[in-house]
Amino acid sequence: MTLSPQPVIYIVEPFGGSVRRHNPNLPHVFWDDAAVTRGDGVFESLLVRDGKVANLAAHAERFARSAQLLDLPEVSGEDWERATREAMADYARERGGEPFEAKCTWTYTRGRETTGVPSAWITVRALPKNIAEQREKGVKAMTAPRGYTITPNLPDAKGAAPWLAVGAKTLNYAANMAAMRWAREHGYDDVIYIEPAEEPGSTRVLEGATSTVLVFKKGGKIRTPRHGGAVLAGTTQQAIFDTAQDSGWRCKTTDLTVDDLLKAESVWLVSSTRVATRVTKLDDEKLPASDNEAEIRELFDAAIQKSLES
Amino acid sequence: MTLSPQPVIYIVEPFGGSVRRHNPNLPHVFWDDAAVTRGDGVFESLLVRDGKVANLAAHAERFARSAQLLDLPEVSGEDWERATREAMADYARERGGEPFEAKCTWTYTRGRETTGVPSAWITVRALPKNIAEQREKGVKAMTAPRGYTITPNLPDAKGAAPWLAVGAKTLNYAANMAAMRWAREHGYDDVIYIEPAEEPGSTRVLEGATSTVLVFKKGGKIRTPRHGGAVLAGTTQQAIFDTAQDSGWRCKTTDLTVDDLLKAESVWLVSSTRVATRVTKLDDEKLPASDNEAEIRELFDAAIQKSLES
Repeated sequence: MTLSPQPVIYIVEPFGGSVRRHNPNLPHVFWDDAAVTRGDGVFESLLVRDGKVANLAAHAERFARSAQLLDLPEVSGEDWERATREAMADYARERGGEPFEAKCTWTYTRGRETTGVPSAWITVRALPKNIAEQREKGVKAMTAPRGYTITPNLPDAKGAAPWLAVGAKTLNYAANMAAMRWAREHGYDDVIYIEPAEEPGSTRVLEGATSTVLVFKKGGKIRTPRHGGAVLAGTTQQAIFDTAQDSGWRCKTTDLTVDDLLKAESVWLVSSTRVATRVTKLDDEKLPASDNEAEIRELFDAAIQKSLES
Repeated sequence: MTLSPQPVIYIVEPFGGSVRRHNPNLPHVFWDDAAVTRGDGVFESLLVRDGKVANLAAHAERFARSAQLLDLPEVSGEDWERATREAMADYARERGGEPFEAKCTWTYTRGRETTGVPSAWITVRALPKNIAEQREKGVKAMTAPRGYTITPNLPDAKGAAPWLAVGAKTLNYAANMAAMRWAREHGYDDVIYIEPAEEPGSTRVLEGATSTVLVFKKGGKIRTPRHGGAVLAGTTQQAIFDTAQDSGWRCKTTDLTVDDLLKAESVWLVSSTRVATRVTKLDDEKLPASDNEAEIRELFDAAIQKSLES
């Protein structure tokens, strides 16, 4: 077995797009970077498979949109894609040419308070250790209230809250990480956020702490919660829907309740680097595997393969 | 006029408390630090005046509580206080001995993913440039919905959301910073968060984007919104209340509406380093100075002087 090489880091010069390799054993973020002092920045996690990036265009698009929502200087998708290719090529070469998967992260922050110049970098590194197991064996998930409700408008028409940057993938994930720790302390692997639905007594499913919820129902139906507000639009979910629709699945975004999850043929959490993991237990209820699990896994794989940029 | 010296940075070793000075022209935060990747850490901003820290005990207490809420290893207040004294002494010496004010920041993060060791450091540096002007001339503030409502409990008794870490002063300030940018673009200097009150048509005042709201009313009354939920307990507000009560002011935490602010004798935003700035305009309404402004400023100054550790 080939050992994973060191992470490959490329610093991206935000204006002009020149890039330079950075030694991962040396720090590069300053004490007054807005990412450190305020979590004021955006990111994307991308899957690298055999030297190619999955869903590159969708990630680049969301990244640019996140930056725009945070009033960061405009992102040149081309520069980031070029830097990503260089970093991937280095990583692949240092790994010795065997097929591999890796995780690529794009980070773009408002930068140092003392310079006002944004900070931007790309990392390529081995997948987290538990990913292979979670992909194969699935996860036990607990449902949990998010703890807050997005209310971009006040009832008295005070107006919207454009500064909330709803839909931006920011670095403000402390609450999600805390929810994940809490879940692990209670014997679960993951969290699915829920909130009270409009219908009294009913509960709406939002998203995983770092993933999108996908529900497979009888009759070849795939459902996912409507995005917007407290639900981030998922790049992996979109790629799966695109491929699934071509293969005859009937895909729809809709409102889902916890009951819908319990009654489904199978429930999956999908995200960029983990791709997909089946929910084997939801709170106290076991969710047994469905007969079409192999077919579903083939669908996921086909969606990723199709999305690998050539 | 003495020029401000370079910022003084001390890295704090989280277990054992040894400290070492760090060159501010070199980065010290790694690409995989949880502060950078997730905003997963806590901080405090402290005012340094003439080589002493204002409200040290209150800050140390809130810092320890924030860390506890985020499940970070326990904070030794003593270590942080010792490191702060060393950093302050260096800064004062390098400044040349004149009386001065400075801003001290404590940062404590979950640390590097690859090591699992928390990161911790202290900075002492010059006050932001606009502080003197805001203290003297006040600020124009716009009211704004926070954009989300803290709902730690679900109606169906699914339970609380302890992972939300309500009350922790975390690094997740991207939304606040976005609100401040939005305010500046619209001709304001600051933001006061509001939310719909239980009484229909009424609006509850929460807090400033980086400050606590203080309202002075006729008859020597001082009011501040109840903390908890979406309102962080303010160390400066508490210090002011302590001193004010001793001088015969009648202080209370209570529910406040925007109307209460408009009808007040004067409205102030108080925070650690800026101390206090008067709100001179709230949305479209000018808030004229009150006759007792000099007395109020003396009160603030007395509260800070009293809180300087000796």
